Amino acid sequence: MLGTVLYGPGDVRFEDREEPRIIEPTDAIIRLPATCVCGSDLWPYRGLQPLSGPTPMGHEYCGFVEEVGSAVRSVKPGQFVVGSFATSDNTCPHCQFGYHSSCMRREFMLRAQAPYLRVPLADGTLVPTPGIPSDDLVPSLLATSDVLGTGWFAADAANVKPGGTVAVVGDGAVGLLGVLSAKLMGAERIIVMSRHASRQKLALEFGATDIVTERGEDGVARIKELTKGVGADSVLECVGSQQAMMQAIQATRPGGSVGYVGVPHEMNLDGAQLFFTHVRLHGGPAPVRRYLPHLIELVLDGKINPGKVFDLELPLSQVAEAYKAMDERRAIKALLRP
Amino acid sequence: MLGTVLYGPGDVRFEDREEPRIIEPTDAIIRLPATCVCGSDLWPYRGLQPLSGPTPMGHEYCGFVEEVGSAVRSVKPGQFVVGSFATSDNTCPHCQFGYHSSCMRREFMLRAQAPYLRVPLADGTLVPTPGIPSDDLVPSLLATSDVLGTGWFAADAANVKPGGTVAVVGDGAVGLLGVLSAKLMGAERIIVMSRHASRQKLALEFGATDIVTERGEDGVARIKELTKGVGADSVLECVGSQQAMMQAIQATRPGGSVGYVGVPHEMNLDGAQLFFTHVRLHGGPAPVRRYLPHLIELVLDGKINPGKVFDLELPLSQVAEAYKAMDERRAIKALLRP
Repeated sequence: MLGTVLYGPGDVRFEDREEPRIIEPTDAIIRLPATCVCGSDLWPYRGLQPLSGPTPMGHEYCGFVEEVGSAVRSVKPGQFVVGSFATSDNTCPHCQFGYHSSCMRREFMLRAQAPYLRVPLADGTLVPTPGIPSDDLVPSLLATSDVLGTGWFAADAANVKPGGTVAVVGDGAVGLLGVLSAKLMGAERIIVMSRHASRQKLALEFGATDIVTERGEDGVARIKELTKGVGADSVLECVGSQQAMMQAIQATRPGGSVGYVGVPHEMNLDGAQLFFTHVRLHGGPAPVRRYLPHLIELVLDGKINPGKVFDLELPLSQVAEAYKAMDERRAIKALLRP
Repeated sequence: MLGTVLYGPGDVRFEDREEPRIIEPTDAIIRLPATCVCGSDLWPYRGLQPLSGPTPMGHEYCGFVEEVGSAVRSVKPGQFVVGSFATSDNTCPHCQFGYHSSCMRREFMLRAQAPYLRVPLADGTLVPTPGIPSDDLVPSLLATSDVLGTGWFAADAANVKPGGTVAVVGDGAVGLLGVLSAKLMGAERIIVMSRHASRQKLALEFGATDIVTERGEDGVARIKELTKGVGADSVLECVGSQQAMMQAIQATRPGGSVGYVGVPHEMNLDGAQLFFTHVRLHGGPAPVRRYLPHLIELVLDGKINPGKVFDLELPLSQVAEAYKAMDERRAIKALLRP
């Protein structure tokens, strides 16, 4: 089987990898009609996150069950399933509390930029769709696996309420789907920080009401101006840098909430500074599994089309170009067809 | 008038200070039947917080209205009132959102370790009691002004719910009243970190169910053990040090909440570390004004006795000894009678 391996900064290879097979009786093997590149894949691609060696990439997936281990009960071959980037048994205390991505048996997925994938803890991790979805829904279902689930968690963690004022820091796929999520949760005003025409356009389509092109202090000042000096009720931090987090915190009203889902890189928060902002901070790896049934339903019912974040489609064999296009911000998110 | 002035580390003086008088038409002057020393006063007393010069001390207060400015409408001379350590107009967007201690016109109070006090924004800041309370209720009413209000906010910010499991880091007056608050909010289990017999006793009296004497990693391990490896739903951080905050975060379950009210000193949070804990963080200067009507009612109805945290009573002239006793942890909290 040919799959994706990252060897080092900028060095993505499409090369022979071992075919996945059942290892544990709780495993499933699925065939992927599509896969994709995540914004978080760009951190190691850019050399900003160390690699311990050649690393098989990809953690977003949906597809057809090919084979299941002897202990798997809730999914069977032939079904179409969606899973999260974090496996979960769906029964431990953390899962029952809704934090599946902190499951006591969690593994972070890799190897999904390939035609086939082994999924551990299949019963707890995979959510089957009712029937086989049409092929045109695959991009949107794939989006629920991470970017939509993560944007949704950002909005949930930021305590978005009907009628609320929301700001979104980050115009990548997660930020854009954070806009969509906030809109669905009833936010009245959604301010997006973006400088890219194609992303601004999609943000507006997803429900954004205001675009802020300024950054840093100026961006914060603009959000304050748009909210009559008060700040936003909820701010979604969808980048993971120090600057993005500072913008998010400073744009939030006292007593408001920041939902942060960008994996933090070299981020440090000063306790006293945070204290006096009165901001509520919640985030982490999104517990996508909690939201999957609802998000899948929204897609299948045609109520949302999160697959629109895929503005580039390539055969999987051109995965290196997909990384490059996203790195250079020529594409928001690349879909890959095995 | 003789009042309290901190000149530098360990140097508390009781000396002549100007009598307070109405400056703004929104001011009130109140006479204080009792005042007290706060745990946060110990930071500058210990030289851990810089002073810009001799500083009149004290920010917890209740008492009799002596005089009001021409614009004051809601309190009048002769009434008994309680206020917060932060003034508030009670009308700005931050006040209306419940964050009075971030009021757009906020001032942090000082000068309350004295017989008389000027209170700015009297209408928004002061809450009158119905009638004049008996003298034995004064310590408890004084406690609502800061330590109870702050412990209450810690519990509220930590999202304490009926049936929940709570841990409290810090056995000072705020931590102890955090226990009382969590108990009133219906927590089923309340674990307190404390090594001091008198504080343990009061914690148990206020509703604690478990005492943890270990600190640091060991303390966290003990809380994990007491919660079957899960961690607490809600943790109240009532110290403000790096170590206390790390204990609080690590003792919290994924998806659980830390309410932090100790003013942070040299505290730094690593973004990535926080991210993967899945902990919700909220805190800041407690919006005591929001809670005052409810807390005053609980005291007047005899449902709570937060004044028990005062285990030392001295004439105000011995304020230096009050600081010393608290600094040496001979007293939990000192009440001073002018």
